[in-house]
Amino acid sequence: MAQYWYSTDKKALQTRLRRVEGQIRGLQRMVDEDVYCIDILTQISASNKALQAVAVELLEGHLGHCVAHAQAEGTEEEAAAKVKEATAAVSRLLRS
Amino acid sequence: MAQYWYSTDKKALQTRLRRVEGQIRGLQRMVDEDVYCIDILTQISASNKALQAVAVELLEGHLGHCVAHAQAEGTEEEAAAKVKEATAAVSRLLRS
Amino acid sequence: MAQYWYSTDKKALQTRLRRVEGQIRGLQRMVDEDVYCIDILTQISASNKALQAVAVELLEGHLGHCVAHAQAEGTEEEAAAKVKEATAAVSRLLRS
Amino acid sequence: MAQYWYSTDKKALQTRLRRVEGQIRGLQRMVDEDVYCIDILTQISASNKALQAVAVELLEGHLGHCVAHAQAEGTEEEAAAKVKEATAAVSRLLRS
Repeated sequence: MAQYWYSTDKKALQTRLRRVEGQIRGLQRMVDEDVYCIDILTQISASNKALQAVAVELLEGHLGHCVAHAQAEGTEEEAAAKVKEATAAVSRLLRS
Repeated sequence: MAQYWYSTDKKALQTRLRRVEGQIRGLQRMVDEDVYCIDILTQISASNKALQAVAVELLEGHLGHCVAHAQAEGTEEEAAAKVKEATAAVSRLLRS
Repeated sequence: MAQYWYSTDKKALQTRLRRVEGQIRGLQRMVDEDVYCIDILTQISASNKALQAVAVELLEGHLGHCVAHAQAEGTEEEAAAKVKEATAAVSRLLRS
Repeated sequence: MAQYWYSTDKKALQTRLRRVEGQIRGLQRMVDEDVYCIDILTQISASNKALQAVAVELLEGHLGHCVAHAQAEGTEEEAAAKVKEATAAVSRLLRS
């Protein structure tokens, strides 16, 4: 199994993801309990923000380790490819 | 318990929310299995999109029922307040 | 020429749009003056927010007038179509 | 005046920014000509996307030059600070 910068300390990421999972279950309860649409929409915004925060944490780790490593050890093409890959991931996040 | 437009047919919303919940658990598995950061980021974008699709479905129902009802039955102030409330929810979604 | 809710008072919308136009020209000056990338990115975020605020103002007016009119005067199909059209516009904003 | 990666070839960035500026002026014409709200909202989404594309281009250049330089030449703290700065800029873009 490959090892990445987060491999030695998954707790923070996992805690955040479990919290988002709990928020999504909370949304299902709100629908079960006939909660007002606007309150459900507000909770969806909160869940989205929590998910984006996980993405930003992952991006920071990726830039500081995987991309940095390619820039230090790889060829110019490899480093440029890693940067392009990270920027494309940001572009997808902006569209989601 | 209040009844809303979705109260009689919760299945579609619940199915979507359960799918998002499954995606979030999938993200946790990816972290457990040391998956490459970019692939996790791509999955986060997909989960965000799925969550936004739930929000859009809720918004459409809300506009067609709760806001429409206020516009048909309520005072001008009540109708304007319902529109402002819905627009504020859209604003929060745009920031999330 | 068709008349819409904003036709009698375009000033507010036009003022906001001219401000955004000024911000975009400001971005061009920043590039001309070799300003640090992060500062330009920060200004792009501010311009995006200003543009989204124009969209939210337009959406509120549209829901309170065009959609409300269809719900009051139109057939059920016409009203539903107007709601779907507005929700699709929100969906595009969420993806932009 | 500081020199950055884009300093030697500003044409691409400037062309994109001028196009966005033209789109914003186009929005003002649409308001002047009483265009239907939804069509203006659609044009705002297009302008937002064009602006985000400029941001993504700037981010890619920044990561490949300014951040890479800090990682190659700077201390560990300087490199980490540059990554954190870039990630914070992405976070602001996600919220805009």
